[in-house]
Amino acid sequence: MTNAMKIFVVNPNITRSMTEMIGAAARRAASPGTTIVAVNPVMGPASIEGYYDEALSVPGLIQEVIKAEAQGADAHIIACFDDTGLDAARCCAAAPVVGIGEAAFHMASLIAHRFSVITTLSRSIAAIETNLMKYGLERRCAKVRSVEIPVLDLEQAGVDVLRAIGAEIERAKLEEGAEAITLGCAGMADLAADLSRLHDLPVIDGVTAAVKLAESLVSLGLRTSKRGPYAPPAAKTYGDILASFAPGQSRRNPR
Amino acid sequence: MTNAMKIFVVNPNITRSMTEMIGAAARRAASPGTTIVAVNPVMGPASIEGYYDEALSVPGLIQEVIKAEAQGADAHIIACFDDTGLDAARCCAAAPVVGIGEAAFHMASLIAHRFSVITTLSRSIAAIETNLMKYGLERRCAKVRSVEIPVLDLEQAGVDVLRAIGAEIERAKLEEGAEAITLGCAGMADLAADLSRLHDLPVIDGVTAAVKLAESLVSLGLRTSKRGPYAPPAAKTYGDILASFAPGQSRRNPR
Amino acid sequence: MTNAMKIFVVNPNITRSMTEMIGAAARRAASPGTTIVAVNPVMGPASIEGYYDEALSVPGLIQEVIKAEAQGADAHIIACFDDTGLDAARCCAAAPVVGIGEAAFHMASLIAHRFSVITTLSRSIAAIETNLMKYGLERRCAKVRSVEIPVLDLEQAGVDVLRAIGAEIERAKLEEGAEAITLGCAGMADLAADLSRLHDLPVIDGVTAAVKLAESLVSLGLRTSKRGPYAPPAAKTYGDILASFAPGQSRRNPR
Amino acid sequence: MTNAMKIFVVNPNITRSMTEMIGAAARRAASPGTTIVAVNPVMGPASIEGYYDEALSVPGLIQEVIKAEAQGADAHIIACFDDTGLDAARCCAAAPVVGIGEAAFHMASLIAHRFSVITTLSRSIAAIETNLMKYGLERRCAKVRSVEIPVLDLEQAGVDVLRAIGAEIERAKLEEGAEAITLGCAGMADLAADLSRLHDLPVIDGVTAAVKLAESLVSLGLRTSKRGPYAPPAAKTYGDILASFAPGQSRRNPR
Amino acid sequence: MTNAMKIFVVNPNITRSMTEMIGAAARRAASPGTTIVAVNPVMGPASIEGYYDEALSVPGLIQEVIKAEAQGADAHIIACFDDTGLDAARCCAAAPVVGIGEAAFHMASLIAHRFSVITTLSRSIAAIETNLMKYGLERRCAKVRSVEIPVLDLEQAGVDVLRAIGAEIERAKLEEGAEAITLGCAGMADLAADLSRLHDLPVIDGVTAAVKLAESLVSLGLRTSKRGPYAPPAAKTYGDILASFAPGQSRRNPR
Amino acid sequence: MTNAMKIFVVNPNITRSMTEMIGAAARRAASPGTTIVAVNPVMGPASIEGYYDEALSVPGLIQEVIKAEAQGADAHIIACFDDTGLDAARCCAAAPVVGIGEAAFHMASLIAHRFSVITTLSRSIAAIETNLMKYGLERRCAKVRSVEIPVLDLEQAGVDVLRAIGAEIERAKLEEGAEAITLGCAGMADLAADLSRLHDLPVIDGVTAAVKLAESLVSLGLRTSKRGPYAPPAAKTYGDILASFAPGQSRRNPR
Repeated sequence: MTNAMKIFVVNPNITRSMTEMIGAAARRAASPGTTIVAVNPVMGPASIEGYYDEALSVPGLIQEVIKAEAQGADAHIIACFDDTGLDAARCCAAAPVVGIGEAAFHMASLIAHRFSVITTLSRSIAAIETNLMKYGLERRCAKVRSVEIPVLDLEQAGVDVLRAIGAEIERAKLEEGAEAITLGCAGMADLAADLSRLHDLPVIDGVTAAVKLAESLVSLGLRTSKRGPYAPPAAKTYGDILASFAPGQSRRNPR
Repeated sequence: MTNAMKIFVVNPNITRSMTEMIGAAARRAASPGTTIVAVNPVMGPASIEGYYDEALSVPGLIQEVIKAEAQGADAHIIACFDDTGLDAARCCAAAPVVGIGEAAFHMASLIAHRFSVITTLSRSIAAIETNLMKYGLERRCAKVRSVEIPVLDLEQAGVDVLRAIGAEIERAKLEEGAEAITLGCAGMADLAADLSRLHDLPVIDGVTAAVKLAESLVSLGLRTSKRGPYAPPAAKTYGDILASFAPGQSRRNPR
Repeated sequence: MTNAMKIFVVNPNITRSMTEMIGAAARRAASPGTTIVAVNPVMGPASIEGYYDEALSVPGLIQEVIKAEAQGADAHIIACFDDTGLDAARCCAAAPVVGIGEAAFHMASLIAHRFSVITTLSRSIAAIETNLMKYGLERRCAKVRSVEIPVLDLEQAGVDVLRAIGAEIERAKLEEGAEAITLGCAGMADLAADLSRLHDLPVIDGVTAAVKLAESLVSLGLRTSKRGPYAPPAAKTYGDILASFAPGQSRRNPR
Repeated sequence: MTNAMKIFVVNPNITRSMTEMIGAAARRAASPGTTIVAVNPVMGPASIEGYYDEALSVPGLIQEVIKAEAQGADAHIIACFDDTGLDAARCCAAAPVVGIGEAAFHMASLIAHRFSVITTLSRSIAAIETNLMKYGLERRCAKVRSVEIPVLDLEQAGVDVLRAIGAEIERAKLEEGAEAITLGCAGMADLAADLSRLHDLPVIDGVTAAVKLAESLVSLGLRTSKRGPYAPPAAKTYGDILASFAPGQSRRNPR
Repeated sequence: MTNAMKIFVVNPNITRSMTEMIGAAARRAASPGTTIVAVNPVMGPASIEGYYDEALSVPGLIQEVIKAEAQGADAHIIACFDDTGLDAARCCAAAPVVGIGEAAFHMASLIAHRFSVITTLSRSIAAIETNLMKYGLERRCAKVRSVEIPVLDLEQAGVDVLRAIGAEIERAKLEEGAEAITLGCAGMADLAADLSRLHDLPVIDGVTAAVKLAESLVSLGLRTSKRGPYAPPAAKTYGDILASFAPGQSRRNPR
Repeated sequence: MTNAMKIFVVNPNITRSMTEMIGAAARRAASPGTTIVAVNPVMGPASIEGYYDEALSVPGLIQEVIKAEAQGADAHIIACFDDTGLDAARCCAAAPVVGIGEAAFHMASLIAHRFSVITTLSRSIAAIETNLMKYGLERRCAKVRSVEIPVLDLEQAGVDVLRAIGAEIERAKLEEGAEAITLGCAGMADLAADLSRLHDLPVIDGVTAAVKLAESLVSLGLRTSKRGPYAPPAAKTYGDILASFAPGQSRRNPR
């Protein structure tokens, strides 16, 4: 079965260099027939570190998903480990949507009884733990750890980032008996192979995991169920600038 | 202990008449020294029904919370039963923030072993169930039910709304032995007393519950902990129009 | 809305000086229109430390609740962190009943993702953990800790108690990332403000939290649901001295 | 290994005829070397139906347990399906203590994946569900059902009780696929064999289950761990009439 | 990235016609570079219906996995919805192993908040529920249903099977609001597309889902972690006929 | 009530000396009327350490259970702490079946709020944790620990084994406040009494616990429910050597 497909990878922050790195990682993981289009919104935070950044990134992210639908997206990937805006994106897309956080968790569950997560800042731990509980996989995750390196510092830091994450991996092996590691930030996508080799256990990156899961869903003809919480938004007024987000409906006069 | 305080109630949708109804309900519940300021964003959906509307309402909501902070808010209430944007609001406010959903759940837990929720549309059930699990109170809720009446129809519908909700209350009593009911939409705030009398069990409205909990937090001097996920947002670039949301920081040139 | 109300605070142990301290803390937290009546049983243990003391304190506690009902109580507070006798009190009171343990947990849940509890003796930890699970809030509590100071020693110990609790607070911040602290004994009611200031995080005392929640319930007209487990006791024989507890019924000849 | 042992079965209500029926059932289940002593307190409710009755039965129950310890009890059984006072009894007894509720649940777990409970009144369902959660066995129980027959009516009602319970058994088989039934009241101890035969599935009675578990613990030399929540009560003042309960300590002058 | 790979699909029962049907379904789902080898043991049950059949199928299944490893398997799929022998297979394979049950659950979790399972016989429901709990996805599954058609009758039954499963799908939509369906037997692999079209919701078959997940793992270079429960078996004596299973070790004389 | 009964204890590994030790321990715990028959399969692993060994031991184990049924077994005990093959054995036995793991967990739950498990190798921890979750008792277990001594080394090692387990017991007391210990391997059956005395807390061995529970079930006339997952296997073809396992059915010619 040949599957020519177009997958849009949305980096929900506005940092173009990070989008490019994510796109390159996605392309390396993609099957021959898959076209990866990596985009980011024009509005939103430069990086996503905590609930506030998450919330402000969503409208821009949604706008990109709606544009991608119009351009014939077969699937969407949200390239933020918090799976920012995932539920909302599922409502307004006909094509399936995969978050890199859930992708990493599901993949890790297939090769390990218990895995640990290593993310950037401790302020993101609660959001990741809440997602794990929402997905049902909280018992599969032994611990969510952080290296206290801001997202945008991952790009420059080179060897030091590897070393900092590596130190947490060794702690995870020792303290909670972690069998595998999921890297808790899209900005770490390039590091998985090196870390796996250096620390001798599977290291899962969410971007590449999401590419394979998105391809899988498209290949199987599976799309988000529209029965229940992911039904398309009702036709209604959306005030001001956000009105342009309302998918497939005429704009009524707000207020 | 006299507590003169100013509580901002943010209706995260842009329907002014609903904001006014919510404000009136909040004022009836408020203590003598409490000033209630009911506001709504200028941008966002006309009503919040599902994840898509939730996501699009948050930036406007956040903007209102930041404005309220500048105006000396002692506490904030988010008047959407999905507790839309609650986590983000807690990050950018120094004053405590209470969602009407969590307020209703916590209050119901003090007077009943098991309560049921009656909301507007079935598409919102998953979000409410997920919140209950996040708060830890999912076992206290016997069932989340819906009457399939859109939010904005609650205002006009008069007796029929009472009847529709009443029919679900009777089912909840019969089928899951519900001991109390929480009304799952800010637009139902006016109906609690009538429904309680008609159906002879406690009926909890989230708006008034949140007013009392917000007053309680202020009176006790309790504010959101800034250790952990609710720490203030880091100073960073926020692209375009959203830049104005960034609290307490100079704007850098995006991209 | 002015709420003149009378709240009875029952210290379920027989130590009068502790009752007075609790009453004073409650009064400081109460709203202008609220009258606080602090009482304790004449029978029962001098302090409540573990299941045995809990069990033996309940009949005296129930007797006080029934007396308070006859004196027009608008609400009852049970001032033992184990929420001793809470379910039984709810059965025999028409007015709402709030335990200081549950009050602290619910309040902490509004200002922190995860809190820790610091109680007196390790022998009480299991009971507190079981309560958290019963209430549904066990995932919100990172850890229940103890300082190994008996309840009645809290009164004298002065600075040393502050220091011992403070040491546990610092451990809770470091080891489990606690965002807020709830003090796990009514005898610690006076220490919350100092501990919060010294350790720079919210510290919640159950007595004052319960006062605000009880006022809130009364103000909202919410009472314990009588549908289900909190229905009034059936009319039946209660043998011997306990017969006097049977509410609103003639006494039949036991045996 | 011959085990001559003395097991005290405490019916925590004061209805002597019920104590006798329970004692007879226990004797039929006991091994040859086991002496069953069936007792009940002189104070407390005539039957235990809900939290209020539970609470008032505990002091009398504890008094009986302490008396039984003095008479050389090898084990104690608390013959109320709510496992009333079980934790407190464990604190003041050196010998192991088994509740008939937990006994039935553990036994049922050995012969069925999912069982249902059939108790007397619906007001007791919440307490039984809470116990199941406390023990950890809530997922093993498909449903807690009630026949709405008061405890003391079980004795007279003859065939009608069998028929009422039988009807619930058939519903449990049909609606939740129950594989086994546990009878949720000590007053049903005599009915298990008939119901099992009539409805062709295992029916577990807690009294006889507890006798076997108590014998097992004694035979294995296992006693309640005194490390943790079941440590003996601290020496302290117990006011008034309850002072006589304080185990193994001189009485100080209360207040 | 081109991935030429060889995936072994083991049908753990000995019914060759079923193996061929499964192999054909797997081939239709496979990517161009993937070779599917469908095998079954020579010993074991003709179909797997319940724990007894599961247990007896495992040695034959393991033998096939070990043979497949020797033939250069890049991944293994266990084509029984109970994920029979999955843990054991992971111990003795270097290549990743995917069960069709877990594959279906993980895929369903990416396109629906809640799904239902429809399996053959009610006797298999407990095993599937236990697996869901083990994987962590029990809250994502609304209900496990059965059509009471034995596994081997699926092949002949034609339209009637479609109708029987369809009736359960409609009940699942109505009664538990199922958003998607997973088919609970490898023998149903051919029916997913028709059922999805007829009942207008996503229907997931485990065989094809497992093919895509196995390809994904191979493509990402992810293998079962050997740290923890999936470490290779220790060198030891395996008695009699089973000795031939012992991977990579000389046979010692048993007993 | 005199209970003359015959209990078969199946050691699922093929090490005869271990079977004898287990049989002796079982006999010491048995009641006067109980005959203990200790057996082991002729095929299977020399010891059970992990999922692979578990899987390969089950057919031999099942064969022994079927033979024991034919010899009039009143109950079966599976003497491997992983409760290997327990579900399958329940399907093919009319008499009740008790695993030593579940027996230890249920007994420990009657004498302690929280217990710890100490097993042989860390590779077995996941299986034990999964069993605890399946049984519902995972919250009763504070931690599963290992001493890293292979099963067959337990026999020789003498004092060193006591010392290694003792060191873990002390850690369990200190680190997780364990109130009781369950020994996580049949090969530790002889050590319980010494360890309990040396470390001053209850130490539960599964073999002796299972004997008492099996006697209890027999004495109460309780057998595995055949409604649901433990129904007898359907009549079907079992290929090759395993055909001899098929209980009560003629052998058809396997393809």
